[in-house]
Amino acid sequence: MLDRKTINPNVLNASYAVRGELAIKAESLRNDLKEGKKYPFDSVIHANIGNPQQLDQKPLTFFRQVVSLCEYPALLDESNSEAISKLYAPDAIERAKTLLSEIGSVGAYSQSTGVPYIRQHVADYITRRDGDKVPKASVDDIFLVAGASAGVHLLMQLMIASNDVGIMIPIPQYPLYTAALALYNGTPVPYYLDEESGWSTNIDSVKSAYDDARKNGKEPRAIVVINPGNPTGGSLEEKDIKAVLQFCKEKNIVCMADEVYQANVFPDSPPFVSFRKVLLSNKDLEGVQLASLHSTSKGMVGECGQRGGYLELLNFGKEAREELYKVQSINLCAPLVGQIVVDCMVNPPIKGEPSYEQFKKEEDGIFSTLQTRAMKLYETFQKLEGFECQRPQGAMYLFPQLKLPQKAIDAAKEKGKSPDAFYCMALLEQTGICVVPGSGFGQKEGTVHFRTTFLAPGDFGERMEKFHQEFMKKYT
Amino acid sequence: MLDRKTINPNVLNASYAVRGELAIKAESLRNDLKEGKKYPFDSVIHANIGNPQQLDQKPLTFFRQVVSLCEYPALLDESNSEAISKLYAPDAIERAKTLLSEIGSVGAYSQSTGVPYIRQHVADYITRRDGDKVPKASVDDIFLVAGASAGVHLLMQLMIASNDVGIMIPIPQYPLYTAALALYNGTPVPYYLDEESGWSTNIDSVKSAYDDARKNGKEPRAIVVINPGNPTGGSLEEKDIKAVLQFCKEKNIVCMADEVYQANVFPDSPPFVSFRKVLLSNKDLEGVQLASLHSTSKGMVGECGQRGGYLELLNFGKEAREELYKVQSINLCAPLVGQIVVDCMVNPPIKGEPSYEQFKKEEDGIFSTLQTRAMKLYETFQKLEGFECQRPQGAMYLFPQLKLPQKAIDAAKEKGKSPDAFYCMALLEQTGICVVPGSGFGQKEGTVHFRTTFLAPGDFGERMEKFHQEFMKKYT
Repeated sequence: MLDRKTINPNVLNASYAVRGELAIKAESLRNDLKEGKKYPFDSVIHANIGNPQQLDQKPLTFFRQVVSLCEYPALLDESNSEAISKLYAPDAIERAKTLLSEIGSVGAYSQSTGVPYIRQHVADYITRRDGDKVPKASVDDIFLVAGASAGVHLLMQLMIASNDVGIMIPIPQYPLYTAALALYNGTPVPYYLDEESGWSTNIDSVKSAYDDARKNGKEPRAIVVINPGNPTGGSLEEKDIKAVLQFCKEKNIVCMADEVYQANVFPDSPPFVSFRKVLLSNKDLEGVQLASLHSTSKGMVGECGQRGGYLELLNFGKEAREELYKVQSINLCAPLVGQIVVDCMVNPPIKGEPSYEQFKKEEDGIFSTLQTRAMKLYETFQKLEGFECQRPQGAMYLFPQLKLPQKAIDAAKEKGKSPDAFYCMALLEQTGICVVPGSGFGQKEGTVHFRTTFLAPGDFGERMEKFHQEFMKKYT
Repeated sequence: MLDRKTINPNVLNASYAVRGELAIKAESLRNDLKEGKKYPFDSVIHANIGNPQQLDQKPLTFFRQVVSLCEYPALLDESNSEAISKLYAPDAIERAKTLLSEIGSVGAYSQSTGVPYIRQHVADYITRRDGDKVPKASVDDIFLVAGASAGVHLLMQLMIASNDVGIMIPIPQYPLYTAALALYNGTPVPYYLDEESGWSTNIDSVKSAYDDARKNGKEPRAIVVINPGNPTGGSLEEKDIKAVLQFCKEKNIVCMADEVYQANVFPDSPPFVSFRKVLLSNKDLEGVQLASLHSTSKGMVGECGQRGGYLELLNFGKEAREELYKVQSINLCAPLVGQIVVDCMVNPPIKGEPSYEQFKKEEDGIFSTLQTRAMKLYETFQKLEGFECQRPQGAMYLFPQLKLPQKAIDAAKEKGKSPDAFYCMALLEQTGICVVPGSGFGQKEGTVHFRTTFLAPGDFGERMEKFHQEFMKKYT
């Protein structure tokens, strides 16, 4: 009998705020609205999760043409027909043909680590991205995964040998990390990001967190860095990346770089520099083990539902790779369509190719929309009493701090809720906007935050503004 | 530093023979052939894994039309155009439209448990399958997963609270189970299937395995039954299913029914009866917790690479479901395309619909090919000296027993290999055929088996026959 008494306590201990109480409530409100029930709002806005295509973002045409053809290869048999050439671009047809000649069928399992041809394209992409001053990336270092989350699970499963193993995570963090740590029964070793300086990584805070963990008998074996940041939206400077890697070298621990927002950095922010590039550019960092994650879910691609991503392992030995291969093989393989979307992401149309103009226009359009929406929401928050928000540098989120009146804090307490959960629930119930309380990500004791995506179109900011003003009036 | 000393010992302990040493060797032989190296064969045949579309099986057209349209919704905007109606069937267009109106975009995350509309179709399918003498299936019991493997992982993670928890597994078994048990550090409690009676489940063997485990201080919490069997190809009789469920009732343990081959049962075998139907047809079985798995990877669908499947939970309480939801939400959601393939599988074209004739023809063709190939291989094995093989009843595999000459057993020993691994490696090296040694699935001490799919076309059986005769000659 499986019940509370027998369920794995690690599972009971895990929590995942992004899809927690508020998300469930939002879903039920959406169903109510569908059935005609009346609320003070006419739609639910899921700002709790970076799910661009659920809101307004359109898929990139080239990507979808390639996948559509791979899924229905009969089309390729008549690819010279008028019908096909009217509907699909010639380079999409070419790409689909080449991929299928490598893959066979998208209905077949691939090799456990992913289609070798696509893994080579990932390596080529990394090589181009990091420039010719550092060594080329190797296909042997690339593992295709079902979204970065699957990569995180793999790594955690490999690294957490017992509860004495600590994994250093930023606070605030993306709650996948604490959830995975709970599931595999590792010990989270939190280090605090520096809110005042745009959520930068303060190496002193890292060092003291490490020392504290050691004092408590835990052995930190890895540090997670999310850059650009989730939920913070911050983009790290090269010197901070170097400091983290130096720390890894000194302590002989693994660096896990979550770089899924690498394409989402705004022009007036520190530009994205990969951990890999910094590692390989500095002789004194030689040998540091780096696991880097990327995904098709974010960036301008935004293909969350296709479940594509990759993991690059640098400086890991044969054994670790073989064990990773084994665990991947137990899961069979990442979805083939996700692997194809990875191929398109790392190898999009280039200048001169038939799909290039449209691709470029779509990509630029999405990028500028994201930036516009980020700035608009940021400016709304700037105006609001009790809001303190760092200027967005990238990713898909704002993580404002709220100074709530004592009366609101008391009201929350009375309801048995933390102030942030209380605020977010009121926001959802009155406006239909679903955001995630800061406590889901971690925040300094006594502070109140929430995370919201800036993906939603329309009057999203206005709804929030109106709600906040009424909330403040009510509790002041 | 992640190396052998620090890697999670549960990971080190896991093994997965289907993609183990032989599969890696097969892959490297395939690359060699591609590069022009000479071997005594001109192709590698992957008979190690049930991967129909890697071999010869064609995807079902209706399914692929629906997915192709969902991936490229621009086509639906002009669905009345001549081009589209030439390429896609009207009911595929209709299905894609309906699905997209429910899903939004296949590039968006769905709800963690899957698209509600598709889950309802799964419930409807189960209701139809099990007939009107038992209660209807409920959408609340259905969880969409990324292939049945993902469902198994979820359940193991939920159920294994410590190493004292035993999970009863058949021997031989599909090695996903022992692998998952190792990863989550549970204790396998093996019960032996009865080879002589077509690999049936012998309830006395189950009972004594249970008692032994209890004596050893372990607490069996669930029993896994694979029906139709993998690797055995056996189809269980209703009375055996009932006996297992009665046992679950008596011991208050969970029944995990792996029913992914439910569509692969040959006409002259005991017909497929679901554990659910037996459970709900017998008042005295009331309350038994049943977790049943199905997949898009097998059957006539054979869409392994799309990663679709579902898990049905019967008689589980609110808490277990909520915890399952949580773990699923930490993984975000199953791939949307896999979910769509599930929809097509449980809701294929019906008589009178435009795609029905073609669908039926394709499905029947695949079914009869499978049966023909199974019988052909079986008959080849019947002829061979030292082979003992049960008549295939379903699934995609044969699991013959080999009586090897002592000289072969000695030769294996000399090479530090088990006799089955020795035989299978020789087979691969001399014929390019990759099968899996019986030890990967478990076999009675002192017996020698291997598992082969019967999916491969062509001279597959002849190659095996010739090899075996030479092998026997060499070692007799």
